[in-house]
Amino acid sequence: MIANARRPSFAHWLTTTNDITHTFLSASQVPDLINMAGGLPAPETFPVSEIAEIARDVVINYSQEVLGYGPIEGLPELRDALATRFSSAALPLTRANVFVTSGGMQGLDLLGKVLLEEGGLIAGQFPTYLGALDAWRPRSPTFRNMVIDDPSFDPVSAFEGAQFAYTVPNFSNPTGKLVSVEARQAMVDAAHQTGTWLIEDDPYGTLHYDGPPLPRMIELSARLHPGEPYAGPVVYMGTLSKEIAPGLRIGWVIAAPEMIEALIMAKQGSDLCTSGLTQRVALGALNAGLIEQIQPMILDIYRKRRDALCAAMSQHLGDWLDWEVPVGGMFVWAVGRNPSLNTDLLLPHAMSEGVCVAPSSVFDATGSNRRAIRINFTRNDPERLTEGVKRLAQALVKMQARRH
Amino acid sequence: MIANARRPSFAHWLTTTNDITHTFLSASQVPDLINMAGGLPAPETFPVSEIAEIARDVVINYSQEVLGYGPIEGLPELRDALATRFSSAALPLTRANVFVTSGGMQGLDLLGKVLLEEGGLIAGQFPTYLGALDAWRPRSPTFRNMVIDDPSFDPVSAFEGAQFAYTVPNFSNPTGKLVSVEARQAMVDAAHQTGTWLIEDDPYGTLHYDGPPLPRMIELSARLHPGEPYAGPVVYMGTLSKEIAPGLRIGWVIAAPEMIEALIMAKQGSDLCTSGLTQRVALGALNAGLIEQIQPMILDIYRKRRDALCAAMSQHLGDWLDWEVPVGGMFVWAVGRNPSLNTDLLLPHAMSEGVCVAPSSVFDATGSNRRAIRINFTRNDPERLTEGVKRLAQALVKMQARRH
Repeated sequence: MIANARRPSFAHWLTTTNDITHTFLSASQVPDLINMAGGLPAPETFPVSEIAEIARDVVINYSQEVLGYGPIEGLPELRDALATRFSSAALPLTRANVFVTSGGMQGLDLLGKVLLEEGGLIAGQFPTYLGALDAWRPRSPTFRNMVIDDPSFDPVSAFEGAQFAYTVPNFSNPTGKLVSVEARQAMVDAAHQTGTWLIEDDPYGTLHYDGPPLPRMIELSARLHPGEPYAGPVVYMGTLSKEIAPGLRIGWVIAAPEMIEALIMAKQGSDLCTSGLTQRVALGALNAGLIEQIQPMILDIYRKRRDALCAAMSQHLGDWLDWEVPVGGMFVWAVGRNPSLNTDLLLPHAMSEGVCVAPSSVFDATGSNRRAIRINFTRNDPERLTEGVKRLAQALVKMQARRH
Repeated sequence: MIANARRPSFAHWLTTTNDITHTFLSASQVPDLINMAGGLPAPETFPVSEIAEIARDVVINYSQEVLGYGPIEGLPELRDALATRFSSAALPLTRANVFVTSGGMQGLDLLGKVLLEEGGLIAGQFPTYLGALDAWRPRSPTFRNMVIDDPSFDPVSAFEGAQFAYTVPNFSNPTGKLVSVEARQAMVDAAHQTGTWLIEDDPYGTLHYDGPPLPRMIELSARLHPGEPYAGPVVYMGTLSKEIAPGLRIGWVIAAPEMIEALIMAKQGSDLCTSGLTQRVALGALNAGLIEQIQPMILDIYRKRRDALCAAMSQHLGDWLDWEVPVGGMFVWAVGRNPSLNTDLLLPHAMSEGVCVAPSSVFDATGSNRRAIRINFTRNDPERLTEGVKRLAQALVKMQARRH
């Protein structure tokens, strides 16, 4: 017997991936590291005692739903509650439009499963959410970049031949940009005209610090056929991760029933159903009005942190980086003033100084954007943010000294 | 603008799937239907009040782990507890060998992601677990049937060219068969000799009603290099779904560290991490000894139900079907005495009579096996099982009457 015979190789896509998310998540366990890399919420906003009581109560009161298998598409009452939450006069949603996912990430994975053949074309907005790239990588997709804020942007030609278009219109991850109403309407019109599925990924929609939220694209789509059961091309995705707590791993997809049916087939072979415990806790939190109750506190904390981060950056990083103050979300996107800045090389220097940020290469399908960093401002308090910025400046100084 | 432009088609694999699992899970909501189709545990075995207290306590005591993001591979303490549980003198497991999944199903999905290219070859044991076929269908795999209980079975040639071999050695789903120690050893030896990954899917391992459990294949594999850190080809999968409650959606993979690393990359793009709430509840249940506490009751209830089902079948179905009394698990596999029995056609008759069983076609990659049914005996009490068998006999009578 040969003890170490050659094994079949792992699937090819694994050689094309990166472990930066793994690094981010593990970094949360390194002592004294100031982690400004991940999209992590502030744990002090978690409604701990309320969730604890809800958790106990739902196990007792709904033990079969909580502890047994449930419908693949989610618990009917949770789907109804989400339909109610996102309904409007133009958009009268029902349970048939709503699908519960195990966190927002699973929605991306399942959409890839139902829409992508190997090598399929995606119209994306780059730089884009790292997790979306991770979710679709096993299908080795090709990407077309939509430059949405370019005045000459033509969504109809951008969507041509794509299996779907993907955008994070509110405080886009990683750039923090807000897509204008005009650009939203143009993409919705193009989706209706071409039939292309338009994925509206909206994890940050409630995190707006300056001014009211803009209309959702699914709402703009519904207004083309107001009051009818929704059967349009927009696939809206949300999550409780930023509104209550990521540890519940509860997200949702709101879409035409034909899309929900396809997602059911994909989830059947992915995790069968989302935990009845986490679904019932989510429903309990929704019914108790927890989101509305904690949102003002969350916005207040995050707005102050954004301002503190940007003030510290002006003081310590202005010679090195350019950025815009984001009107919402969790991130500042800062671009090297010197085009030769390589933030992949900056990362180990930053880690040595005790700070972690996300380098731009991971938000790009090709990994070629090396000039920027994404800095999270929600996880740390103003003092830690200021200290993190100082450490980052120190890392930049040391990296430059090393090169000379 | 064209209101209903043609949409890009869904991925091809969706046309090859079936919605029988969806039917099973939804059937649990039809009143008075006796559902003997799914692999559902008896809800009266759920340790409801214990889980309720654990759930509240872990939210309070581990709020950041429970409500925040966690490591992709699972909470360190849960991985340690699982390593301890499955360790032996020959198999000294560590955290590096353990990966937490969102239910057993996710392990199958992720293994497909890391091992299968489009159209890859799997050495399977047919009929096989429906969920495994669902999990791998998006990769359009090809299958080679291993007839493990055939005296001429040669695992080395069966594994030739396969990306992996898949087996449910304990009370195989759907047939209820137990793979002998000799066959286990032969497959383990062949896996070591050829390097083929050997997936040991063991959701039913603790449900043995007659006699002690047989050694796990991962244990037999470890005995070839006893006491060394495990780096062999067996990939062991388990779940809390049958031991405590499926609604927690907690499963695990125990394997060589290189496999765990690959699974981490796949889970990163699938659901990012399993809920901290369900993981902490699972760990609390393990630490409290809940599995050991409720197992004798579960075995007692299920053994009586198996006996009641088989007695009722002998009385009402002996003219129609042949079966063996299973020594463990959740199912009786019954084959039509008449080779022309078509159990796909039986299903609607059974549903009309108010009973649901699983037709054999769904356990076959080609759907060509139409002669058998899988009957679950764990979900219903003896009276309901007996009534279900009577309804099934009635459905067989009516189907035959219809054909004449």
